[in-house]
Amino acid sequence: MNKNIEPRVTLLGAGPGDPDLLTLKGVKALQTADVVLYDALTNEALLEHAPSAAIKVYVGKRSGEHSHSQDAINQLMIDYALNYGHVVRLKGGDPFVFGRGYEELDFAASYNVPVSVIPGISSSIGVPGLQQIPVTHRGLSESFWVITGTTTNGQISDDIYQAANSNATVVILMGLKQLSKIVEVFKAAGKAQLPAAVVQNGSTETEKLVISTVENIVAKVQEEKIQAPALLIFGEVVSLHPSFKNVIKQYATIS
Amino acid sequence: MNKNIEPRVTLLGAGPGDPDLLTLKGVKALQTADVVLYDALTNEALLEHAPSAAIKVYVGKRSGEHSHSQDAINQLMIDYALNYGHVVRLKGGDPFVFGRGYEELDFAASYNVPVSVIPGISSSIGVPGLQQIPVTHRGLSESFWVITGTTTNGQISDDIYQAANSNATVVILMGLKQLSKIVEVFKAAGKAQLPAAVVQNGSTETEKLVISTVENIVAKVQEEKIQAPALLIFGEVVSLHPSFKNVIKQYATIS
Repeated sequence: MNKNIEPRVTLLGAGPGDPDLLTLKGVKALQTADVVLYDALTNEALLEHAPSAAIKVYVGKRSGEHSHSQDAINQLMIDYALNYGHVVRLKGGDPFVFGRGYEELDFAASYNVPVSVIPGISSSIGVPGLQQIPVTHRGLSESFWVITGTTTNGQISDDIYQAANSNATVVILMGLKQLSKIVEVFKAAGKAQLPAAVVQNGSTETEKLVISTVENIVAKVQEEKIQAPALLIFGEVVSLHPSFKNVIKQYATIS
Repeated sequence: MNKNIEPRVTLLGAGPGDPDLLTLKGVKALQTADVVLYDALTNEALLEHAPSAAIKVYVGKRSGEHSHSQDAINQLMIDYALNYGHVVRLKGGDPFVFGRGYEELDFAASYNVPVSVIPGISSSIGVPGLQQIPVTHRGLSESFWVITGTTTNGQISDDIYQAANSNATVVILMGLKQLSKIVEVFKAAGKAQLPAAVVQNGSTETEKLVISTVENIVAKVQEEKIQAPALLIFGEVVSLHPSFKNVIKQYATIS
């Protein structure tokens, strides 16, 4: 290890996709980066904030592609920090919202490498917001519950069963593949008519929105050929979106 | 109304307090503001991004102070938009996380004034994150539930009762005054030993953190003279904080 190197790591939340949703603090961190490790879900335009001499390494994990394991990412991060100095670990959304950020922090700490955290706009709040769907609204929702759709055991999270029976606005990340199962959970909770939305590629140019009810959302998602990454929203707040009026009209004509 | 005026409103999330946690998109919006309406919880340093000629109006609502009602804010926002053009409505955190942002959007829409939404870092995620407390972590938490501690009827939200019985990390905003009541709810759910944290003025220079268990958090909060605004975190993830479990040393923040 070079004696002039001061190894450190910044876990930086890149936001949901639009590069302008990076924070000023994030820009400053990138400007002092010696190395940037970035994910599949981060917009490569963000790398332009880093010095041209900085090393930029893609460590994406995307299903079906050659990918780095979490252990490999942790190790790379430390190797680069020890050899080059300031590693910015650029992560989609917020580092601690299903980002395994704490595992990276913990690994760096085990090497006595100092870690800073810079929060990012989590898609769980920002993506509904950009669609003008508020996660909370007086009279409709006093809370929102954000859940992963992908668990380590491949089953849907127990938390989704609890959430379907709660009053919360429910936001599910990485849940598109499990949508049919999730919908069954909401139906079993008596919520077939609950407004539901799916947003693909939120905050980017390829953003797509589907709005319906729990009962009909799977068909609509297939019809519109929605693909991952996508975010699911279940709750009365979805009815505030202007296009929900058409959903209601549809039923009026059907029944 | 001046014919050359193009009225529009941007609902802009200012983030939790640190002015560097504003997004680039937020900076751009402020740079084109004719009027900025800002809250008690927004950092006044953010106003420097707006042109010096822009009108800056404080419309804070803080308990015990002379304050603007929501109706008055809505009306001001529209009057300024119609008379001056681009109104940036700068709101603490994210506009749709207990920010009554949708009421403002809806009011502007009723005047056919176009509204854009720019998400902000919600303190619900960012403040725990800056303290290196991850709201989710494999093996500890597959979800987080964000709830208001202040409801319109003065009672604590029913959602807190449900949340205390769930597996989610529970984050409560504006709940300090109700802390004793909330703690009783968690105790009744058999969670006296659950790790709990309270963060005052998260992300600012006057930030203060108290970490304990449900059982002892009220005493600790009184001892440390914690004041509003403060955020409450209940969940196993709190145990990951260095001061709870002396595994990870505390590191300097980014300089």
